[in-house]
Amino acid sequence: MKVITITEMDVRDLRFPTSLLADGSDAMHADPDYSCAYVTIKTDNGVSGHGMTFTLGRGTEIVVEACKSMSRLVKGERADEIFANFGSFWRKLTSDSQLRWIGPEKGVTHLATAAIVNALWDLWARIEGKPVWKLLADLSPEQLVSTVDFRYITDVITKEEVIKMLREKESGKAEREKFLMINGYPAYTTQVGWLGYSDQKVRQLCHKFLKLGFTSFKAKVGQNVQDDIRRCQLIRESIGYKNNLMLDANQTWDVPEAIEWVKKLAQFKPIWIEEPTSPDDILGHAEIARNLKPYGIGVATGEMCANRVIFKQLLQAKAIQFCQIDSARIGGINEILSVYFMAAKFGVRVCPHAGGVGLCEMVQHLQMWDFISLSGSSDGRVIEYVDQQHEHFEDTINIENAHYMPPSAPGYSTKFKNSSLLDYEYPHGREWQRLFQNGTFQKPID
Amino acid sequence: MKVITITEMDVRDLRFPTSLLADGSDAMHADPDYSCAYVTIKTDNGVSGHGMTFTLGRGTEIVVEACKSMSRLVKGERADEIFANFGSFWRKLTSDSQLRWIGPEKGVTHLATAAIVNALWDLWARIEGKPVWKLLADLSPEQLVSTVDFRYITDVITKEEVIKMLREKESGKAEREKFLMINGYPAYTTQVGWLGYSDQKVRQLCHKFLKLGFTSFKAKVGQNVQDDIRRCQLIRESIGYKNNLMLDANQTWDVPEAIEWVKKLAQFKPIWIEEPTSPDDILGHAEIARNLKPYGIGVATGEMCANRVIFKQLLQAKAIQFCQIDSARIGGINEILSVYFMAAKFGVRVCPHAGGVGLCEMVQHLQMWDFISLSGSSDGRVIEYVDQQHEHFEDTINIENAHYMPPSAPGYSTKFKNSSLLDYEYPHGREWQRLFQNGTFQKPID
Repeated sequence: MKVITITEMDVRDLRFPTSLLADGSDAMHADPDYSCAYVTIKTDNGVSGHGMTFTLGRGTEIVVEACKSMSRLVKGERADEIFANFGSFWRKLTSDSQLRWIGPEKGVTHLATAAIVNALWDLWARIEGKPVWKLLADLSPEQLVSTVDFRYITDVITKEEVIKMLREKESGKAEREKFLMINGYPAYTTQVGWLGYSDQKVRQLCHKFLKLGFTSFKAKVGQNVQDDIRRCQLIRESIGYKNNLMLDANQTWDVPEAIEWVKKLAQFKPIWIEEPTSPDDILGHAEIARNLKPYGIGVATGEMCANRVIFKQLLQAKAIQFCQIDSARIGGINEILSVYFMAAKFGVRVCPHAGGVGLCEMVQHLQMWDFISLSGSSDGRVIEYVDQQHEHFEDTINIENAHYMPPSAPGYSTKFKNSSLLDYEYPHGREWQRLFQNGTFQKPID
Repeated sequence: MKVITITEMDVRDLRFPTSLLADGSDAMHADPDYSCAYVTIKTDNGVSGHGMTFTLGRGTEIVVEACKSMSRLVKGERADEIFANFGSFWRKLTSDSQLRWIGPEKGVTHLATAAIVNALWDLWARIEGKPVWKLLADLSPEQLVSTVDFRYITDVITKEEVIKMLREKESGKAEREKFLMINGYPAYTTQVGWLGYSDQKVRQLCHKFLKLGFTSFKAKVGQNVQDDIRRCQLIRESIGYKNNLMLDANQTWDVPEAIEWVKKLAQFKPIWIEEPTSPDDILGHAEIARNLKPYGIGVATGEMCANRVIFKQLLQAKAIQFCQIDSARIGGINEILSVYFMAAKFGVRVCPHAGGVGLCEMVQHLQMWDFISLSGSSDGRVIEYVDQQHEHFEDTINIENAHYMPPSAPGYSTKFKNSSLLDYEYPHGREWQRLFQNGTFQKPID
């Protein structure tokens, strides 16, 4: 790659007023306004990279502030040098001797890292003229491991082991890529069971998604066990027992409560219970998994796990049967790759979290790379799918017969349309001004 | 308590240019500028509360932004109602349905929680006219547990168990308080072995602190094993083998590396190795502890542990022999109390982290309360002590014969002098303006 210097890094606060429709409502997040901190990295060769981290409304301004504070680590750097040794740059970004104190590698600063790192991958893919999944699939095993910081995970996996794993899967890559181009990657829907939805709406949506070809359906639980039983019954009546049902508690329970509650829902044969308790509680998830194993219910978590060290332990402790990486959390693609490597080593299936702004757009690339290069399989694996906010992206996702079809445009599919930026930048965007003016939302006080 | 309403919440960015002297330098934080986000909560009865969270310079602006964003949850609230049911308010502060996504309960937003919550305790103690340690010691067991949110820890400890533990220690409280007033609480010094110090300076400081009556000394390790051996030898030559040596690696190692490295230092008989690896790695710390047990070396960690859920697991997994709560991290006193409760149940000694701005000031209160009300003992326990930045506080700490003497002024000892605010507020304070002008520091770009 020729010399390319990063000249600018812009950050924007984008928010969508999703709380108006109770879309995305769950046991812990009653009224989310799907949002993101949106990073644009400009270079001296004219190509720009666009990346984001997902947020729920309030607090986006804090992540934006963190991105701005970290921009000094990005501006003026050579993009070509970053991509040649991305793992080292990633460590530099997460190890600033003063900044790391307010993490480390978790919360706001790590979300900011994800936004910046995702913008860099988008930039890299655009320079190469490939979608990110193809860029990843075309990297040699040595190049791929050079993007990852193995600090704190070498007790479980090493560069050498990963190179060996990737080599073993090299023979079938071309066939799998071809298969993917024709068949796509299986998706599941969460859209039948947000907590804020009425029974009638749930039933209606089950039928809609069945018609669209979906075979896996997820419902939110955890506010009231009688309601949960009623809703599970209702969904099973609609989708039958040949299709998959997954349940999601969004961290609402303590460990003993989780075990008792889920046992009461076991009659509906869910394949997993997602986020039964605190995302930091590795030993708690392990205890829940041990207790639910006799019922054939697996434990799934990941969308709010802080970093690779937490994932490492969830795998070591046999605490999860489904690994739910999130494309906007942990430190961007580089760190997510390390989670894929560890999951492959432990034989645990990755079923990515998606749904919030940009998450479907990004995570399809990662799961497709995994299919081609690492696990070599989509058996028992599904990508979450929610059809919201896709219209705001230049390269929109393409779902056919409940499968994600491989994106073809260069990049990470996260460049917003200009009109969406003008409408939804918070608080000055046109749509927000309208919502303040008509009293639907309160204007923020400065 | 009469009706008291919170009318205002101010937040300031205070920084001290400690990097100029390599004070506080360790294997991961080469050049800290000891700093804090400083919160002042004003009420309609004239009493104000002052609280802070510690930071290392860059990034303080992000924590300040988080405090400002959270102020909407504080302003207009009734202080008397908060203190009557502090656990519920704490949950409200940490569970905002939109904000929690960018944590939850970790990193920037949890540091901001700590600053706000610490200011509330300072306010409460000032209203009661007592230092915080005395306020805590005078609360009934029922009142004390009402300040704590037991969410996510009920699998290990319940309110009822804590009340029983506290009741069992009620008989000797008066004697222990008297003992404390006369003898104080034992301190240890970290100031002999920052990594940036020369051998001569280390030797000099060992002699200085020996003379002052210290019997426990901590040194930083982890950059180079030969240097560590030389420095340990040098410290042991100065302090002998009757005194305690502790080692601190500040998260520099991977798990297998930690075990091998510390074995090489075992000849110097350290009582603990502190922060051998990532603060998120519960299973890693447990593995290190298992391997170092035959050498009589315990594992200590806590200053960067995110929350009570991490501490719970460190205790469950027998990963720590010394529990190092930090008064400026996790969600302030309320959550720290839950860690004390769990440590007491597991029989693990709490030896608080201190040293950064305000940490000694705050943590002495907590450990003194523990001595009076919970553990009832200071055996094998010490509070970290570093003599930096104390001159900036109105109620300065009082060390006599290497013991913290109980503070007598009402509050949490964290109210800054007005002159220090004028000098060190960043970037507009007088001292910072001087340092920018003479070129010692670069002015931040906005």
